Amino acid sequence: MRLPPSTLTLPSSPQQSQPSMARRYAAVRAATEALARPLSAEDCCAQSMPDASPVKWHLAHTSWFFETFVLEAHESGFRAFDPAFRVLFNSYYHGVGRQHPRPQRGLITRPDLATVRAYRAGVDARMQQLLSQPEVPGDVLALVELGLQHEQQHQELILTDVKHLLWCNPLWPAYQGTAAAVVAEAIAAQDTAWRRLEGGLAQIGHDGEGFAFDNETPRHTVFLQPFEIATRPVTNAQYLAFVQAGGYREPAHWLAEGWDWRRAQGLEHPIYWRGDGECGQGGGPGGWSEFTLTGERPLHPAQPVVHLSYYEADAFARWAGARLPTEAEWEVAAAACAGPAGCVDHPADADVLDDGGRLHPRPAAPAVGADPFQPMGGEVWEWTQSSYAPYPGFAPAPGAVGEYNGKFMVNQYVLRGGSCATPPGHVRASYRNFFPATARWQFTGLRLARDAR
Amino acid sequence: MRLPPSTLTLPSSPQQSQPSMARRYAAVRAATEALARPLSAEDCCAQSMPDASPVKWHLAHTSWFFETFVLEAHESGFRAFDPAFRVLFNSYYHGVGRQHPRPQRGLITRPDLATVRAYRAGVDARMQQLLSQPEVPGDVLALVELGLQHEQQHQELILTDVKHLLWCNPLWPAYQGTAAAVVAEAIAAQDTAWRRLEGGLAQIGHDGEGFAFDNETPRHTVFLQPFEIATRPVTNAQYLAFVQAGGYREPAHWLAEGWDWRRAQGLEHPIYWRGDGECGQGGGPGGWSEFTLTGERPLHPAQPVVHLSYYEADAFARWAGARLPTEAEWEVAAAACAGPAGCVDHPADADVLDDGGRLHPRPAAPAVGADPFQPMGGEVWEWTQSSYAPYPGFAPAPGAVGEYNGKFMVNQYVLRGGSCATPPGHVRASYRNFFPATARWQFTGLRLARDAR
Amino acid sequence: MRLPPSTLTLPSSPQQSQPSMARRYAAVRAATEALARPLSAEDCCAQSMPDASPVKWHLAHTSWFFETFVLEAHESGFRAFDPAFRVLFNSYYHGVGRQHPRPQRGLITRPDLATVRAYRAGVDARMQQLLSQPEVPGDVLALVELGLQHEQQHQELILTDVKHLLWCNPLWPAYQGTAAAVVAEAIAAQDTAWRRLEGGLAQIGHDGEGFAFDNETPRHTVFLQPFEIATRPVTNAQYLAFVQAGGYREPAHWLAEGWDWRRAQGLEHPIYWRGDGECGQGGGPGGWSEFTLTGERPLHPAQPVVHLSYYEADAFARWAGARLPTEAEWEVAAAACAGPAGCVDHPADADVLDDGGRLHPRPAAPAVGADPFQPMGGEVWEWTQSSYAPYPGFAPAPGAVGEYNGKFMVNQYVLRGGSCATPPGHVRASYRNFFPATARWQFTGLRLARDAR
Amino acid sequence: MRLPPSTLTLPSSPQQSQPSMARRYAAVRAATEALARPLSAEDCCAQSMPDASPVKWHLAHTSWFFETFVLEAHESGFRAFDPAFRVLFNSYYHGVGRQHPRPQRGLITRPDLATVRAYRAGVDARMQQLLSQPEVPGDVLALVELGLQHEQQHQELILTDVKHLLWCNPLWPAYQGTAAAVVAEAIAAQDTAWRRLEGGLAQIGHDGEGFAFDNETPRHTVFLQPFEIATRPVTNAQYLAFVQAGGYREPAHWLAEGWDWRRAQGLEHPIYWRGDGECGQGGGPGGWSEFTLTGERPLHPAQPVVHLSYYEADAFARWAGARLPTEAEWEVAAAACAGPAGCVDHPADADVLDDGGRLHPRPAAPAVGADPFQPMGGEVWEWTQSSYAPYPGFAPAPGAVGEYNGKFMVNQYVLRGGSCATPPGHVRASYRNFFPATARWQFTGLRLARDAR
Repeated sequence: MRLPPSTLTLPSSPQQSQPSMARRYAAVRAATEALARPLSAEDCCAQSMPDASPVKWHLAHTSWFFETFVLEAHESGFRAFDPAFRVLFNSYYHGVGRQHPRPQRGLITRPDLATVRAYRAGVDARMQQLLSQPEVPGDVLALVELGLQHEQQHQELILTDVKHLLWCNPLWPAYQGTAAAVVAEAIAAQDTAWRRLEGGLAQIGHDGEGFAFDNETPRHTVFLQPFEIATRPVTNAQYLAFVQAGGYREPAHWLAEGWDWRRAQGLEHPIYWRGDGECGQGGGPGGWSEFTLTGERPLHPAQPVVHLSYYEADAFARWAGARLPTEAEWEVAAAACAGPAGCVDHPADADVLDDGGRLHPRPAAPAVGADPFQPMGGEVWEWTQSSYAPYPGFAPAPGAVGEYNGKFMVNQYVLRGGSCATPPGHVRASYRNFFPATARWQFTGLRLARDAR
Repeated sequence: MRLPPSTLTLPSSPQQSQPSMARRYAAVRAATEALARPLSAEDCCAQSMPDASPVKWHLAHTSWFFETFVLEAHESGFRAFDPAFRVLFNSYYHGVGRQHPRPQRGLITRPDLATVRAYRAGVDARMQQLLSQPEVPGDVLALVELGLQHEQQHQELILTDVKHLLWCNPLWPAYQGTAAAVVAEAIAAQDTAWRRLEGGLAQIGHDGEGFAFDNETPRHTVFLQPFEIATRPVTNAQYLAFVQAGGYREPAHWLAEGWDWRRAQGLEHPIYWRGDGECGQGGGPGGWSEFTLTGERPLHPAQPVVHLSYYEADAFARWAGARLPTEAEWEVAAAACAGPAGCVDHPADADVLDDGGRLHPRPAAPAVGADPFQPMGGEVWEWTQSSYAPYPGFAPAPGAVGEYNGKFMVNQYVLRGGSCATPPGHVRASYRNFFPATARWQFTGLRLARDAR
Repeated sequence: MRLPPSTLTLPSSPQQSQPSMARRYAAVRAATEALARPLSAEDCCAQSMPDASPVKWHLAHTSWFFETFVLEAHESGFRAFDPAFRVLFNSYYHGVGRQHPRPQRGLITRPDLATVRAYRAGVDARMQQLLSQPEVPGDVLALVELGLQHEQQHQELILTDVKHLLWCNPLWPAYQGTAAAVVAEAIAAQDTAWRRLEGGLAQIGHDGEGFAFDNETPRHTVFLQPFEIATRPVTNAQYLAFVQAGGYREPAHWLAEGWDWRRAQGLEHPIYWRGDGECGQGGGPGGWSEFTLTGERPLHPAQPVVHLSYYEADAFARWAGARLPTEAEWEVAAAACAGPAGCVDHPADADVLDDGGRLHPRPAAPAVGADPFQPMGGEVWEWTQSSYAPYPGFAPAPGAVGEYNGKFMVNQYVLRGGSCATPPGHVRASYRNFFPATARWQFTGLRLARDAR
Repeated sequence: MRLPPSTLTLPSSPQQSQPSMARRYAAVRAATEALARPLSAEDCCAQSMPDASPVKWHLAHTSWFFETFVLEAHESGFRAFDPAFRVLFNSYYHGVGRQHPRPQRGLITRPDLATVRAYRAGVDARMQQLLSQPEVPGDVLALVELGLQHEQQHQELILTDVKHLLWCNPLWPAYQGTAAAVVAEAIAAQDTAWRRLEGGLAQIGHDGEGFAFDNETPRHTVFLQPFEIATRPVTNAQYLAFVQAGGYREPAHWLAEGWDWRRAQGLEHPIYWRGDGECGQGGGPGGWSEFTLTGERPLHPAQPVVHLSYYEADAFARWAGARLPTEAEWEVAAAACAGPAGCVDHPADADVLDDGGRLHPRPAAPAVGADPFQPMGGEVWEWTQSSYAPYPGFAPAPGAVGEYNGKFMVNQYVLRGGSCATPPGHVRASYRNFFPATARWQFTGLRLARDAR
């Protein structure tokens, strides 16, 4: 997502009670700060590329969101923490006014990190004050919920952006700890199986219960051909086979634009990988290792391959004799899973990231019995072949927050499922993430699909 | 199209008889040469931007196609006209070998135009020899048909590429003649009406009769919401109203990427337009004029607006309270028109461009009676909101010609309908043209759609 | 200087006694740290453009110089503080090995500032240990002296680089304090006078006493025409007259390359200036203000104009009916001043920057009596028209330190005189600073010259 | 030269009689047309890079010069051939008005070549008419002489620009004929000898007899150290030894900027060379061949190396333990040669290029007896280490023609001596050609110098 095209859909957004909202606000805000805790002020200030933002900027911008869209409209006697922040931490809202140029976010050494933390604390105190008033109107609560969903999106971006920054450092320093020993269950690559779905008329889009972004609506009918979808994401072992078979040297596997992109940058493997001849520590199969948020570690065969561009995901699928699913296929398959929460395996009531293994995708659990309908999502965002476009009947909400509802709906591709870095409770089967075909610093992988035989 | 994703679908391609194929071959090849006739050797050699190719290159490449894919495989005692041409005039077929770099096509002053014409003549003689043999196999005839369809695509590119070249010349010279007096019928802009279609299950894609490119297949079922579509393309008068209302200065109308693109280039109006303050001859409404293949002329209010990028078309539609149609909506609407030939108004049996008014789109004919189902297409390519993607079940053909069937299916948008510069008989309701969202040197306009009320 | 083309000339380098060298080492190193004191870790980490380096990098690189060129060769039992630093903080010494890419110095958030300070402390302790040994050889002392001169060059770069960084921040924060009230003596612009020199045979280059960089040698004979040189640098008032006379809009004043450069960037005035319409606080003549290391302040008419590119300096001179001096003219004029220290007005024995007004150039002192021979230098580096080239007989020193002696001698222009930010004692009449014609983030101004009438 | 910094020095410009001027005019103009004769209209229209211009543009611009600077001012009843040409064929004269953008000169397919030839013929007829009037004033004759000198500069550019264009064509077509057998005299590389000059006070600059450009004046005194200069330019064999010794892989030989330039472009040898592994026909030593105006031919060991950038010339000199001469050293050495015409070996009275061997530099003639003072120049332009700068006392001429006298005097280096492609009679010992350090499509080589031992 080139930042969230966020507007809440008021009718379908469930009202939380004020007390629970105040608690939820505190929890989500604290989770963001926890993510910044292992980082120094320097780590939080630097920007490794225009697509990524400094952590400090994320900390400030998410507060700016509450200050600008909630407090400015609904706090009595509103006074800005610092009027300059209105421009400095505006991401792309033309309606709010000018924006500091995105590629220069890393030059904002002042305000310093301590000031930004004070900004957060100030906004939090005022927000709690607001939420403690009797009878907060429903539309204000809805705005707060939107701000929290927005903040959760930035939680994931904090991890992906800092990962890219640390990778640019030739020392490959770890975000946190040393790589814990990863006890991977022994799952052979060939364990991947196909799940068949019959197609026909189906409904996709948000069903009206719980929060959703407007781009997930309206729920509507589609017609699908019968298709098959893999029971798990593509693994490192499977992708490595593609690399070792010369997949990055054979144009026939690639979209023309993808091939030009690959060649212009001289890519021979995924970002964050390092092979034998590239002075890494190696240790994985064929001497391959991988940079992770806990430092360099041997490439794990059974873990999902991650940090692929759309071009790489598509090329792999073609080489494998399959294709990417459409987003409708993905959603229909996810909805076919057992359980009330759909296929997404995060507990829906958790507000904070759990610690430990959440910094990298885990190998898929072994299949239980003969049931192919395992949960989908939760480890890597899965590229679909669908261009990000408005659903039929999609209507932008009026007003400032919703000003830009569809403004990213061109030249981006939809990803589904949520990743290890996505906050629990933040993803659902209808969630539409989106990035340009070149993006590979997110936790992006793929799941194969094919026409039913 | 970033050159034709061409493979023919053998089962659905009707077999022409040999004699008629020989006649058709001669007619199509002659039409190409007729297009080059008003041009000097210098005109034919220059390349105005990497997206465009020199006319001489088009003349050679279309011959290369027959030499490489037909003669090399099926001529006994084949000898290349010049072995160097294999690289020089290969567009993007990795399977055939290396390619001369696209941005440097304009530096190929040798072979000169006379040599390229001799190349054409040589290929033509050998092709006619081949076609005069008894019992030419069906698959060879199918390849010849593909080559002719390919050549017709390049006929349109010759006109659009040379138009861009002449426009780069500050003298704005005409491709041909002086602008003929355009006797436009008096059609007020407000004459545009909406046609309602009920949606539901529908079939799109090529129906199996006559030639089609593989990207039009397989024919398949889609489900559509009820929608409305305009009875004619957007006119210059309508688009000028957008310009004059400050449409190029208000980010709210634009996709975010479109706004950045517009601003980076400082665009204030469509390419080929010139306003009062820009030292043109003016003469149109508000002093606006337009560069055409017959030179500069006053902007004609009732003519379809042309040479829009996807971003501009989309911004106009949003400003107008409407949207672009999807390609399925477009095709279903076109199929609903009366007449056996669908909505496309070119006579299907004509092989050559007619002269005169075909160098610029014409104003729409007045509605006849109360029938809203007028033909669609034939004046401007109409942007749809659909990303260019494979149809369900699309399978690339094996072998050299079909090697790259889907390779352009990313970051491009589908256009429908055919333009004034499209050879008659070359377009049909299922035809899928495609270009990147930034392209505006093609004859591209739009037709509005909206959800049914 | 695109970093110091440094080699010391052993014969001409005066031997300091060991104890005085140890004291001098401590003083120079402490001065560097004093410069970083007003800055946060974030300030020290960011890099505003490839030409500039982070302060932290300067702190580390100057220590790397001593570790690599002195300790590694002359410390018994040498062990690197951190082997990775050898690459990380190597500026451009191919002979020492690979270098971290210059444009990515700002991404080195680790090692953090505290670690770099520990690195400095470690190197200092080891250096003092080395210097406390009995009988340190002369060539080692010479290397130490070179390292200190090198460090003084970086002291100036710290100020210019951080100035550029802070200017990129839209808040225009101050490096230090608030702008002290500047009590400028009332010197009218027309007070500038011309000093005549008779030319003929003269000697330029270092005369063999005291330290000098190798590019100042050998001292040699030149032949000069009679010329006149201004008694003070061009002032803000004089330069503002050029701006207000449309100097940035008239190509006749500019070198062709300078005009193209100006136009491509849309420049209308010097970097760091802000005019009435540019949302500054203004306050100076015509509403002009200037960004300084102490924040924004009104443009002071009598202060030397500073932060000009060569193109701007040259254009101003042509507009003023004069020209830039050659470096030989400059040096001969400086040598003609009274006093044993030449014209440079820094006390030669001071090792540290004094505080206060040294962060910005001061207005020239009023002329004393009729003596035109006032000191030259000390406020702004003065562009000469001389391309940076080897003196006749210049011979690169052998070995690692001197490896690249002449390697910057192309497409750079010589500046003379030293600026407010140059450490006292670091400049002399023969000192040759050099930068590309586009550079304007240094404290660069000009002094006019003309042919004698 | 980035086009001639041309102004004539009226006092020193000898007056030709009117009849001889008319004859000279005809001869020079005819020589230009002769150069275009082997080329097609397509060859004449294309532009291979922004630095180079189409031949058609040269044909038109040189006529524009006479029309604008002579006829417009001095023809009674002046009417422009075509008013649009004033902008179209203005190179860089801001005083004359706007200019067509240089990088788009290749898009000017109209006017076509025939029209430009008609333009030339029209200007010529009007010029001859003017020159046949009684009593043409001296200043008009001086302007005509300037126009002819200007045209001769473009004659050389026609050859170098078309050479670059043809080289961009993968077919490497010849400008003219096939490579004639080159009967090179057997001169071993080691035949190069050093000539010693004693330095001291000397005069350089134009001496007042015959035509000179203003940048050659005023003649003035310089002081030189004793030096030695090679008796011939560096040969292919000598330069090949540098290539084969790994000269393009060792940064120590290169200026820092030159090394970055070399590496960014991946250069391993001079432009126009082709080695064994690069699919050329080879045939020279080590399989090396060279693209020439007569096509590809084996690298000739004894011919001067040609088409070097300043960086390459400088790197070679450093590798060889020598250096480039200064322009003063070059001129003093040239003046020391026997013969009234200085060292330049072109017959001074010839107005036209001779045919045949003039399209490529020839091997140096064997030394005659013990006399080291052989002529200098005439084969390759020789890089000097001198930045292109104004001579002391240089004063730009007033008025339109002289408007930009010094405007190229930055970031360019002086070349001396004239090349095989320089029209006879056009070069003299004081002639100052100049190009940026990156330029290598001119006939540029070098001659070594060193400090006297």
